[in-house]
Amino acid sequence: MTAGLRVGVLGASGYTGADAVRLLLRHPDCRLTVLTADRHAGKPIDAVFPHLAGFGLPALTTVDDADWSQVDVVLCGLPHGTTQEIVARLPDHLKVVDLSADFRLRDPAVYAEWYGHEHRALDLQDDAVYGLPEFARDRIRQTRLVACPGCYPTAVLLALIPIVRDRLVDPQAITITALSGVSGAGRGLKEANLFCEVGEGTHAYGIGRHRHMPEIEQELTGVAGEPVAISFTPHLLPMSRGELVTSHVRQAPGATADDLWAALARQYGDEPFVDVVPAGVSPATSHVRGSNRCLIGVFPDRRAGEAVVISVIDNLVKGSSGQAIQNMNLMCGLPETTGLQQVALYP
Amino acid sequence: MTAGLRVGVLGASGYTGADAVRLLLRHPDCRLTVLTADRHAGKPIDAVFPHLAGFGLPALTTVDDADWSQVDVVLCGLPHGTTQEIVARLPDHLKVVDLSADFRLRDPAVYAEWYGHEHRALDLQDDAVYGLPEFARDRIRQTRLVACPGCYPTAVLLALIPIVRDRLVDPQAITITALSGVSGAGRGLKEANLFCEVGEGTHAYGIGRHRHMPEIEQELTGVAGEPVAISFTPHLLPMSRGELVTSHVRQAPGATADDLWAALARQYGDEPFVDVVPAGVSPATSHVRGSNRCLIGVFPDRRAGEAVVISVIDNLVKGSSGQAIQNMNLMCGLPETTGLQQVALYP
Amino acid sequence: MTAGLRVGVLGASGYTGADAVRLLLRHPDCRLTVLTADRHAGKPIDAVFPHLAGFGLPALTTVDDADWSQVDVVLCGLPHGTTQEIVARLPDHLKVVDLSADFRLRDPAVYAEWYGHEHRALDLQDDAVYGLPEFARDRIRQTRLVACPGCYPTAVLLALIPIVRDRLVDPQAITITALSGVSGAGRGLKEANLFCEVGEGTHAYGIGRHRHMPEIEQELTGVAGEPVAISFTPHLLPMSRGELVTSHVRQAPGATADDLWAALARQYGDEPFVDVVPAGVSPATSHVRGSNRCLIGVFPDRRAGEAVVISVIDNLVKGSSGQAIQNMNLMCGLPETTGLQQVALYP
Amino acid sequence: MTAGLRVGVLGASGYTGADAVRLLLRHPDCRLTVLTADRHAGKPIDAVFPHLAGFGLPALTTVDDADWSQVDVVLCGLPHGTTQEIVARLPDHLKVVDLSADFRLRDPAVYAEWYGHEHRALDLQDDAVYGLPEFARDRIRQTRLVACPGCYPTAVLLALIPIVRDRLVDPQAITITALSGVSGAGRGLKEANLFCEVGEGTHAYGIGRHRHMPEIEQELTGVAGEPVAISFTPHLLPMSRGELVTSHVRQAPGATADDLWAALARQYGDEPFVDVVPAGVSPATSHVRGSNRCLIGVFPDRRAGEAVVISVIDNLVKGSSGQAIQNMNLMCGLPETTGLQQVALYP
Repeated sequence: MTAGLRVGVLGASGYTGADAVRLLLRHPDCRLTVLTADRHAGKPIDAVFPHLAGFGLPALTTVDDADWSQVDVVLCGLPHGTTQEIVARLPDHLKVVDLSADFRLRDPAVYAEWYGHEHRALDLQDDAVYGLPEFARDRIRQTRLVACPGCYPTAVLLALIPIVRDRLVDPQAITITALSGVSGAGRGLKEANLFCEVGEGTHAYGIGRHRHMPEIEQELTGVAGEPVAISFTPHLLPMSRGELVTSHVRQAPGATADDLWAALARQYGDEPFVDVVPAGVSPATSHVRGSNRCLIGVFPDRRAGEAVVISVIDNLVKGSSGQAIQNMNLMCGLPETTGLQQVALYP
Repeated sequence: MTAGLRVGVLGASGYTGADAVRLLLRHPDCRLTVLTADRHAGKPIDAVFPHLAGFGLPALTTVDDADWSQVDVVLCGLPHGTTQEIVARLPDHLKVVDLSADFRLRDPAVYAEWYGHEHRALDLQDDAVYGLPEFARDRIRQTRLVACPGCYPTAVLLALIPIVRDRLVDPQAITITALSGVSGAGRGLKEANLFCEVGEGTHAYGIGRHRHMPEIEQELTGVAGEPVAISFTPHLLPMSRGELVTSHVRQAPGATADDLWAALARQYGDEPFVDVVPAGVSPATSHVRGSNRCLIGVFPDRRAGEAVVISVIDNLVKGSSGQAIQNMNLMCGLPETTGLQQVALYP
Repeated sequence: MTAGLRVGVLGASGYTGADAVRLLLRHPDCRLTVLTADRHAGKPIDAVFPHLAGFGLPALTTVDDADWSQVDVVLCGLPHGTTQEIVARLPDHLKVVDLSADFRLRDPAVYAEWYGHEHRALDLQDDAVYGLPEFARDRIRQTRLVACPGCYPTAVLLALIPIVRDRLVDPQAITITALSGVSGAGRGLKEANLFCEVGEGTHAYGIGRHRHMPEIEQELTGVAGEPVAISFTPHLLPMSRGELVTSHVRQAPGATADDLWAALARQYGDEPFVDVVPAGVSPATSHVRGSNRCLIGVFPDRRAGEAVVISVIDNLVKGSSGQAIQNMNLMCGLPETTGLQQVALYP
Repeated sequence: MTAGLRVGVLGASGYTGADAVRLLLRHPDCRLTVLTADRHAGKPIDAVFPHLAGFGLPALTTVDDADWSQVDVVLCGLPHGTTQEIVARLPDHLKVVDLSADFRLRDPAVYAEWYGHEHRALDLQDDAVYGLPEFARDRIRQTRLVACPGCYPTAVLLALIPIVRDRLVDPQAITITALSGVSGAGRGLKEANLFCEVGEGTHAYGIGRHRHMPEIEQELTGVAGEPVAISFTPHLLPMSRGELVTSHVRQAPGATADDLWAALARQYGDEPFVDVVPAGVSPATSHVRGSNRCLIGVFPDRRAGEAVVISVIDNLVKGSSGQAIQNMNLMCGLPETTGLQQVALYP
């Protein structure tokens, strides 16, 4: 790690930050030069994450104290709302891969509606690219600021963009049920995330009002050519990692489930991280645990003319830090898959 | 336990059987006189379930060797297919609460289609009552044979019957996603149910072809007055008990989510085991763990004219053995709630 | 619940409090008249624990606002340290079953050493009975204040008191390893108790300095007739409930593992809640989940002259609220087992 | 993967086999040329492990049908007992890294006592090296057959060999408690490994008679210079991966816990995979999940002159397939750490 891209991770004391560090430690063309965690500034990172001891990582610092002259690109895993102000203050030479929601929504009114305040860095928003690499590679390569999709939007959009764009399904009749492990909620101290609250049980949350909805609708609207409204119901599951999205769709007249499968297979035939599984195989979150892969399966519904599309990712990798590194690779001229070829940890 | 109803449990070495025994041991008006488990005949039940040691239970026997003169009513937790033949051979004086699928489907052609063979006890099928007590109390009281609903159908039908029946939702546009703990799959040795296969992950199964579908459609068709086809996608979760059903519905013109809530609240206002939770509360499976309750919540979808109805049960209690005892109480003239008032075990 | 003993639960918003309420709701001779939770005063309890909705429970109140004229006995599940001051202020007519550590240690110096401050209610301490009912029944019946043992001490002492007292094992060579579910740590917001920190992993904590050690040593010293020092290493497991204690002992000259088994079997032959399992059966925490039972197994070690004694309890029941109710029954002249005969929830 | 060492994995349908494949797929100097799984011969490996789809792996074959001319070294993950016969039939040019217990015990009488039959390949046993690389590097480099230690022995021996060898602890007073995830039991169909049997609970097993005991005793005896008998009690935990060993030791006169720590730190100062954590840090299995690391912590016991040594590994990596690859690297002249530098997956 003595040469190559110099990377900073902002918000290194969260799960997203830790997973970015895990991956970057083995990225052959990077070295970690700055790790920030305001509350823990001054400590070694293993005081916060003991599993990161022994790798010679820099001590945690505040964002304000970071030495940006030692950094080429930052992965920013800070909370929504504060991110925009911090990114606005970063030196111009830094490329920014942002993991928050701050730069995902192109319409300031939509941002304000869902996040409860006016956006405070609209000029930056104008430059930001929505970083789903499979659909925005060229633009990602040329920008300074990438807004990484949320974990749910990643799994939803990879499954739906090709079949909505190709008019194989009715864009106004998409009903999405999503299942997530608890790490999606971060490491903050909330009673709802205690082991005893989550263990051996499940419940839905944010029904009809989850903040990932406008992001999904923005992108589907873009490819549908008409305003799309989705139904989206997320559930919390007793597991740490993993996200499974079950999208129920109505096919366009004449289209079959096989057509959906074929369109997805065509789209992702050469993609390194997205695979369409054979008919009859049910994608499981454990098939992608710890890896940057997304698996997609298509099933004909018993109700004629309808189908079920299932997509799975590891929310912390393809749904967060892995995708961020994929974007970083693109932005910095590295091969897209560098450092991201972990095989899933099963079991 | 020296007086009262004499109860036999057939298939006592499965999870359903064990939970029936758990509940019946504390049922004040019953005593367990026969426990069958063909593979374990001759053993004490604690050789199979150590937690049932010390209660003076009868030894396990085969169905053939059981002394039916000591039994008034049987709870039958045997596998699908063999159940019909065994029930046909039981003495006439026995009341039968069947937990298998054998007597749930009224149309023999539907049975043959989904179970792969002709029904072998059609005369019994004619007498069987589909035992969802909240909707069939009077008929249950008067029959000798109750077919207990499957676990998924119980949670689905309690949530949907009132609103389909009252024409508050479009019966042809119901999309159901279901989440289940692993005990729903029983105690049989299948690789898919090993801890390492299920832990820290989730996947869908039986998509578009789960055997609980015809049962749900039969009952919804009954109240809709037209043939109903549902979409139904079950998922396996890393937990032992609990079932959560998310039903996405389209409201009839003019109807609101509040109307759905009101119809459900009206229906279940006096029910001992079904509760409609206040707006904004998300029912969790942990809220009903170990209890015979079903909780139902109604949420307006963000897409106009649609709603999400969520219902939770413990699949082994209200979804199986608890409901069986509820039916047994009705059939045998006991107060319906006797022995079934456990408070949920939380956490 | 219109007659009988009037019970207050102090600290009803914790897991211990919730489990006390679960059990008392079905206790045939009690009714809950006061529930305190200072931070949540004014709310219904189902705002804190939705699974307790619908039982007609009194609203949460502060300790200061509680109407003690409506209460005969309190179960006190408040934090260590503050408990002693609050109990000291309670009216004299109240019997008190305390679940904290405040009144467990008879020697004020030991209390001060382990809890970091002088005890502030020493006169009450003098009256307190250490409430392990199997060994203090008569004294519990006659006192006003019972200090319920900690969860670990309960499982340890039930396994060891008879064999230490009968001089079957060397009291100075007891090495204890303990495994606990997360609910033992309560519902407080600590990062260490987040699902993602605990799931799919285990670690030891409080090695050589857990606060349950002096309590265990106090009681073993009492029966050994000499000062006993133990080795005690607790571990946190990815489960909500359950506690397993593995005690490694050296037998006295001439004594065998069978002698240990026989002594325990003799001690607990008539006990309603403690069972010694047959040779070869390994007690599992799932065998006692949700119940007030303790199971004990004895195994000869391969190293000559040594043995392994394993005991399991549900930490929230026999290790906490169940044992508190057992004590309450004794103090109030009710049959000891009233309301405590739940069969374990398995799986 | 077009050049380099050609590797075969025997028993590729088990968890050990799958983890070997996971690691070897990213090993820069290897390619997988043979995968055997007799029961699944003819299938692609993703029919057994869907997460291994898309990597261009060879189809599964039987051991008899394997083309050994395409293989330089085999990792053998076959069942105990059959392994010795199969290894005996392998061509001489193959190097063999065996993961079974067949070649671990040097004394044929001990083997026969613990495994119930005479060893059937004693000549091979003579050549086998017990493959704990940290203590047998040179011999491993020069042998054709390595017997990888069991998962428990790996964690136990790394913690204890230095302090037993240096006479810092009494070798006759070691009491070991071990905690393991379920994958240690393999993928075989046993009721005991079903999710519902293991979830939300724990129990001990094989108390005083686990087959890893003679292996531990053999190696400790070797360094102690006197026959060592240990006490060893393993427990099953509700997690898939991870092993934690708590070794309680009595220090030699004059030795302190700090001395133990120092000896371990000295031993492992330059080791790539073994780390002694600072005082006060409690090693957790989640700190090594998916990685080849072993962490060791030392804690003074409260009982004078005694200490607790805690070691953690991932049982499928350092406890199995990772260590096998470490041995393979040594045997084949590759840098020992090649392909084994995964950072732990946390959470």
